[in-house]
Amino acid sequence: MLRIITQQADVKAELQRICDRTHDEQVLHKEATVREVLQAVKRQGDKAVLHYTAEFDNQTLKPEELRVTGSELDAAYQQVSKDLLQAIQLACRQIEAFHRQRVPKSWVHFGDDDVVLGKRYTPVDRAGLYVPGGRAAYPSTVLMNAIPAKIAGVPRVVMVTPPRAGKAINSAVLVAAQEAGVQEIYRVGGAQAIAALAYGTETIPKVDAIVGPGNIYVTLAKKLVYGTVGIDSLAGPSEVLIIADENANPVHVATDLLAQAEHDPMAAAILLTTDTALAKNVQVAVERQLVDHPRRIDTEKAIAHYGLIVLVESLEAAAELSNEFAPEHLELEIKDPWALVPHIRHAGAIFLGYSTPQAVGNFLAGPNHILPTSGAARYASALGVETFLKHSSIIQYSQTALQKVAGAIDALATAEGLPSHTDSVRRRIQQEE
Amino acid sequence: MLRIITQQADVKAELQRICDRTHDEQVLHKEATVREVLQAVKRQGDKAVLHYTAEFDNQTLKPEELRVTGSELDAAYQQVSKDLLQAIQLACRQIEAFHRQRVPKSWVHFGDDDVVLGKRYTPVDRAGLYVPGGRAAYPSTVLMNAIPAKIAGVPRVVMVTPPRAGKAINSAVLVAAQEAGVQEIYRVGGAQAIAALAYGTETIPKVDAIVGPGNIYVTLAKKLVYGTVGIDSLAGPSEVLIIADENANPVHVATDLLAQAEHDPMAAAILLTTDTALAKNVQVAVERQLVDHPRRIDTEKAIAHYGLIVLVESLEAAAELSNEFAPEHLELEIKDPWALVPHIRHAGAIFLGYSTPQAVGNFLAGPNHILPTSGAARYASALGVETFLKHSSIIQYSQTALQKVAGAIDALATAEGLPSHTDSVRRRIQQEE
Repeated sequence: MLRIITQQADVKAELQRICDRTHDEQVLHKEATVREVLQAVKRQGDKAVLHYTAEFDNQTLKPEELRVTGSELDAAYQQVSKDLLQAIQLACRQIEAFHRQRVPKSWVHFGDDDVVLGKRYTPVDRAGLYVPGGRAAYPSTVLMNAIPAKIAGVPRVVMVTPPRAGKAINSAVLVAAQEAGVQEIYRVGGAQAIAALAYGTETIPKVDAIVGPGNIYVTLAKKLVYGTVGIDSLAGPSEVLIIADENANPVHVATDLLAQAEHDPMAAAILLTTDTALAKNVQVAVERQLVDHPRRIDTEKAIAHYGLIVLVESLEAAAELSNEFAPEHLELEIKDPWALVPHIRHAGAIFLGYSTPQAVGNFLAGPNHILPTSGAARYASALGVETFLKHSSIIQYSQTALQKVAGAIDALATAEGLPSHTDSVRRRIQQEE
Repeated sequence: MLRIITQQADVKAELQRICDRTHDEQVLHKEATVREVLQAVKRQGDKAVLHYTAEFDNQTLKPEELRVTGSELDAAYQQVSKDLLQAIQLACRQIEAFHRQRVPKSWVHFGDDDVVLGKRYTPVDRAGLYVPGGRAAYPSTVLMNAIPAKIAGVPRVVMVTPPRAGKAINSAVLVAAQEAGVQEIYRVGGAQAIAALAYGTETIPKVDAIVGPGNIYVTLAKKLVYGTVGIDSLAGPSEVLIIADENANPVHVATDLLAQAEHDPMAAAILLTTDTALAKNVQVAVERQLVDHPRRIDTEKAIAHYGLIVLVESLEAAAELSNEFAPEHLELEIKDPWALVPHIRHAGAIFLGYSTPQAVGNFLAGPNHILPTSGAARYASALGVETFLKHSSIIQYSQTALQKVAGAIDALATAEGLPSHTDSVRRRIQQEE
């Protein structure tokens, strides 16, 4: 049963509990396992990768089986329906169109005395994309990972995803990868995949940035290798927070909550509403829709543990609670959603109005679905083209320009106790005199 | 003595050794200490902060002494020279002018069928700036941290820096903070400062993002709290790589190498040159300048362990070696530096020509001096306004627009086994029929 509480109750503590749902005591124990996997792969390369693939994924591979072959890639197209292929292609086009907007560009500025300043953007040399596998398959996550990397101009993009029974990779995943321009795919998942990408093995190349969501082992491995390589973020289980008014359709709101909960037994689904009738109707609709939900057990778990309806006094109060939670997905199922937007400070993605279910953003509206979770929207953003770009500052001074700032540099260098800093300027301008 | 090797020697291994200079065996031991500090501050707040300040910084403070007072802030202005104040103000203006360029702005795009897509940029609510202290004082680092935060519009910016003997904070640091608009300053450093900012204490507020360079304890603490808060990067000791041709002035090149080495006994200073005479002359000049260098012992250590001159066959070969090293600072002391820029893929900041010593960028050219180190320029960039901003994706669909993509969403949701995703769209468009 989806609980209903009022704002008088200790709402903030409840939201905090839900936000912190992955910070469990077991993490330290899992971290020890992950450290062991990282060390083994660093030292033994493919051998360790294959060992852990057998242990954790129950698939016994030879080194030459790690990479998905050209014939598998070709065959995948035969195995997906025409409808699915077209859907993947539509998603590709829309994701690409969105991500091509406002890509940072290199610039220089010419100042007085021949001073040139600027920023030069370049892509990482190699990117590693993690695509979760296991029970489900996520062709949409392939697109969300790969398209920004391609737009950034990353010369070598490699993908890793765990093998399923029979060593196979889901055909929709292989088709999505090819549609997004990724041909180099390795069947390896978990911490061993992150280790292989961070350190390189005989078969799998070392990359410069590792992106994409994964389970707790993948996330811990990404945190530990951060610094050796770049990472996009630390992903936790998915979450939605819906702000709804009396005009929202309770069946739609209930379905959106379940669309979040069905991802993961750890998913969170929260409704903040000003309307008591809506709260009760959503509660009933969730129960009803759960009855014959194909993923009932896991979905029910998420709803029971991390589902919540809060009755709030105003939409502004709802926005303030939402800001404290900083949700990955925020739906504004209210009459004038744009009026509330200025009150929203932290959210991964905002879905406006009664006709924008999160599903449309999850698959094909264009914006990225790899978003900050567990409160990370307070400081982080969606995966994007920028994730695969970095810039070099550009600085060029003339002797005249240097002369003009020499005194100031001297004062600062002296204050910081750096004599050669002063000398490096003084010696250059004295030459002129 | 600064060693000279040729490209025939195992240059790549040598550069790798220098790049990896902080990945020492002691890190794991230090990490245990840092974990203990984090846990203690999380549980005991100010009490633990004061305990570790006494233990590590030898300063016994009361809780009410943690925050720098208004009268201390005022008094600082009396203690800096007019020249230094003017230098700080010049640096402020130039850093602000550079950082105000090309700041990301919110946008929306109106598509067909009333689809609205966009990105909404917002600052973090609270930022914590770390400014190293200890033996030296870094007013320039205050500016490089604080100015981007202010431009981003961060409502609450707090600064932490370790107390020196007599509990005092360097007056130039306090003046720089005020010139950059930061008034809330706490005298705490090390891992205990990072813990206080990540978890909050009775006195020090919990922040959303922690930025700024620090020693190995600060860096380890930042890595461990990443995920609870955002961080800018993991800083290692500073480094310069200079590419110079036969026209470069050996005394200038030597001074620039020492200007790097004088920062830290772990700093790295590398010269790649096509000219044997220059190599030898730089070697001699470095020796000569070291003789009466006020920081001779530490600077000599850096030069001996992490200094290197490599004779290369061409400037392009130098660029390729530089790309492998991905230096924090890259100086192109060559006749046509702009011709080599397209060959440079990874560098934190590029200083072009014979008249652009790194010192000018370090203090006041405008670009940030908080830069990726230890090879991180392969995937990371300078601290910037973006470090304090994040965006929310904006998605609004109409029923008509939803209707058009319903089939595609159905295909993708089915492939991913997410029935409520399909329902969330179907139920909305059926209502219209």
